[in-house]
Amino acid sequence: MASNFHASIVSRPLVLLTDFGLQDGYTGIMKGVIAQIAPQARIIDLTHHIPPQNILAGRFCLLNAYRYFPPASIFIGVVDPGVGSHRRGIAVRFAEGFFVGPDNGLVSGILRESPCLEAVSLTNTDYWRVPQPSGTFHGRDIFAAVGAHLSLGLAPAQLGDPLDSSELVDLPLSPFQIQPGGLEGSIQYIDHFGNLITNMPGNLLRGKSWTVHLSGQMIISGKTYSSVALGTAIALIGSHNYLEIAVNGGNAQEQFGVNWGDSLTLSFLS
Amino acid sequence: MASNFHASIVSRPLVLLTDFGLQDGYTGIMKGVIAQIAPQARIIDLTHHIPPQNILAGRFCLLNAYRYFPPASIFIGVVDPGVGSHRRGIAVRFAEGFFVGPDNGLVSGILRESPCLEAVSLTNTDYWRVPQPSGTFHGRDIFAAVGAHLSLGLAPAQLGDPLDSSELVDLPLSPFQIQPGGLEGSIQYIDHFGNLITNMPGNLLRGKSWTVHLSGQMIISGKTYSSVALGTAIALIGSHNYLEIAVNGGNAQEQFGVNWGDSLTLSFLS
Amino acid sequence: MASNFHASIVSRPLVLLTDFGLQDGYTGIMKGVIAQIAPQARIIDLTHHIPPQNILAGRFCLLNAYRYFPPASIFIGVVDPGVGSHRRGIAVRFAEGFFVGPDNGLVSGILRESPCLEAVSLTNTDYWRVPQPSGTFHGRDIFAAVGAHLSLGLAPAQLGDPLDSSELVDLPLSPFQIQPGGLEGSIQYIDHFGNLITNMPGNLLRGKSWTVHLSGQMIISGKTYSSVALGTAIALIGSHNYLEIAVNGGNAQEQFGVNWGDSLTLSFLS
Repeated sequence: MASNFHASIVSRPLVLLTDFGLQDGYTGIMKGVIAQIAPQARIIDLTHHIPPQNILAGRFCLLNAYRYFPPASIFIGVVDPGVGSHRRGIAVRFAEGFFVGPDNGLVSGILRESPCLEAVSLTNTDYWRVPQPSGTFHGRDIFAAVGAHLSLGLAPAQLGDPLDSSELVDLPLSPFQIQPGGLEGSIQYIDHFGNLITNMPGNLLRGKSWTVHLSGQMIISGKTYSSVALGTAIALIGSHNYLEIAVNGGNAQEQFGVNWGDSLTLSFLS
Repeated sequence: MASNFHASIVSRPLVLLTDFGLQDGYTGIMKGVIAQIAPQARIIDLTHHIPPQNILAGRFCLLNAYRYFPPASIFIGVVDPGVGSHRRGIAVRFAEGFFVGPDNGLVSGILRESPCLEAVSLTNTDYWRVPQPSGTFHGRDIFAAVGAHLSLGLAPAQLGDPLDSSELVDLPLSPFQIQPGGLEGSIQYIDHFGNLITNMPGNLLRGKSWTVHLSGQMIISGKTYSSVALGTAIALIGSHNYLEIAVNGGNAQEQFGVNWGDSLTLSFLS
Repeated sequence: MASNFHASIVSRPLVLLTDFGLQDGYTGIMKGVIAQIAPQARIIDLTHHIPPQNILAGRFCLLNAYRYFPPASIFIGVVDPGVGSHRRGIAVRFAEGFFVGPDNGLVSGILRESPCLEAVSLTNTDYWRVPQPSGTFHGRDIFAAVGAHLSLGLAPAQLGDPLDSSELVDLPLSPFQIQPGGLEGSIQYIDHFGNLITNMPGNLLRGKSWTVHLSGQMIISGKTYSSVALGTAIALIGSHNYLEIAVNGGNAQEQFGVNWGDSLTLSFLS
């Protein structure tokens, strides 16, 4: 184990995404483990509030964030209902950075956009915190430690056995459908403000106008939340570059009584 | 665009205040954008839990925090119901630091204490993340990027057109009244513990004793939470330097059934 | 007051644990105070979501975290119902690091594992933020400032009057009992996932099998959450090295309707 041999290189940033919440110190402990190995590590919290064990939400959040970090950032993603089972731990390299975490599809959104350049199974216990990890907290005992070593410049190939990218778990997104005169899709994410992020790509909508039907109500298109009156719903291309339903000054989830996965239709105005 | 020309200067700290919550990765993405421009940035979260679109709460929190940060700190404040509309983005310089965010009154509490020394409208797209920002996430596409450039030593005048301080949006605070023998005021903030922070300044109270009437009940004055019995209310000069109502070991908001803006009276004891 | 005399030493990391929550900016202000004194401080949030005034939960969280941080880390712990009263502020040194906070038992879990090597009462106001601190926010006015000075290399003896370790407040843990063929204990912590962490040490369980009785139900032993079917409960040695009751893919607290302090029994299988 040779942890600090690359310490003279400016360290790669570490970006954390988990479903651990912030209540119990689990994420603080992961940062402590990182600091034990890489004292000058730069750590950014993406979020620790992925709904417990919701891999699809974690996948969405990683996919929508990875472009906004420095080159060679290391995304440690721990939404891991299979912790301690035979599911693999992996490190993956893609053009914009690295992923470290369980092989359960968390990184598969990114890899559909930015191809896998290298993948390894985390079998080399030299880079774990301890050779006998806890059966319930690989975030602490494997992923934080591996990420810290990567941040110091370690080559992924040192971390374990090579994998072919086709061996990685891939989670398909619930697809949208192109219909005559419009699109049919679903809600793939609901944010803190109650905004409904659909799976309809903004690229199909740009330069057009439309109406959306959701829960028996019609919603008009616009460019910004405040282009409609307070309390009125609007369907716009959101910051994630998907169609998003919002209520100006309000909460669309509450107003429409909808939930993750619910379907909606969009009709273009000619 | 010359982003790194001041990199040899120790960077100015960045302090973030938003209503984004921590669930969705929005604040993590802002930090990623900052790290892309200023890799060694020092970032401190003031809070991301301002109630959605509550500019007055954000204004209160900034006003009560700005003195406790290093000189030349850059406060990026994003509570921005008007995002994407014609409301201005601004950068403001005052004696203790800088503010970057929407021109909607967020910074106006600070500027009533510490005069505006320089203000600009953020019209120079060279310092934005992209020249065509999202209509819904200026925190990512404008304010984080502008703040990062400022942290590297950029002069505010580079960021856009100069403004006169009289052009900035100013939000008045609900005033307190001096009455014969006391004060009449209101609750301007309720914290995580249920403590009620009023708008009565501690400077008018120091060295005196008083009783407070709130919701038909009388509350005595004291110096610390534990100077009354467990479960008993107390009216003291809080850490914000305003009169604060608390319950020792309890939650004053729940015990009195009150809310933001509710009024109360204080009578001095002779 | 000589704050920066050790600035050439790599600073000791600061680890924060409070019950302040993240809503009101209190923790951001503590970090600002630290940055005023130690601009290059490395700060890690352990948690700020200790249940308000729950010293036992804070003690548990510190005890289970301190081993995972770099040597000489400074743990600033502020769960402080007695703030402003005559309870002491203390700095304590133990083999793995330092504690700064109120003398109310918060650090006593650590000190039962790792003996106190040095303790002082924080009476030297030179290292406080201000000589007249707020009666309600010693986290800002005393503990953050003292911790920042320690991070720069200050010797604890500078901070005030020496204490004998026997003078420190010690909080006993609710004990477990060894019974014929098993153990009797209680729930000492419930985490964000609803996992029930008991007070039965993993060291008494390793290499054995058992059943647990809780709320009139029987729970089998195992190694990982996923070694039972979805929705099924399991009793395993958790990452804290205590017996932990979990539900695979579910929430044990909700499923069993239990709470902190509830008792349970464990029977070894021969």
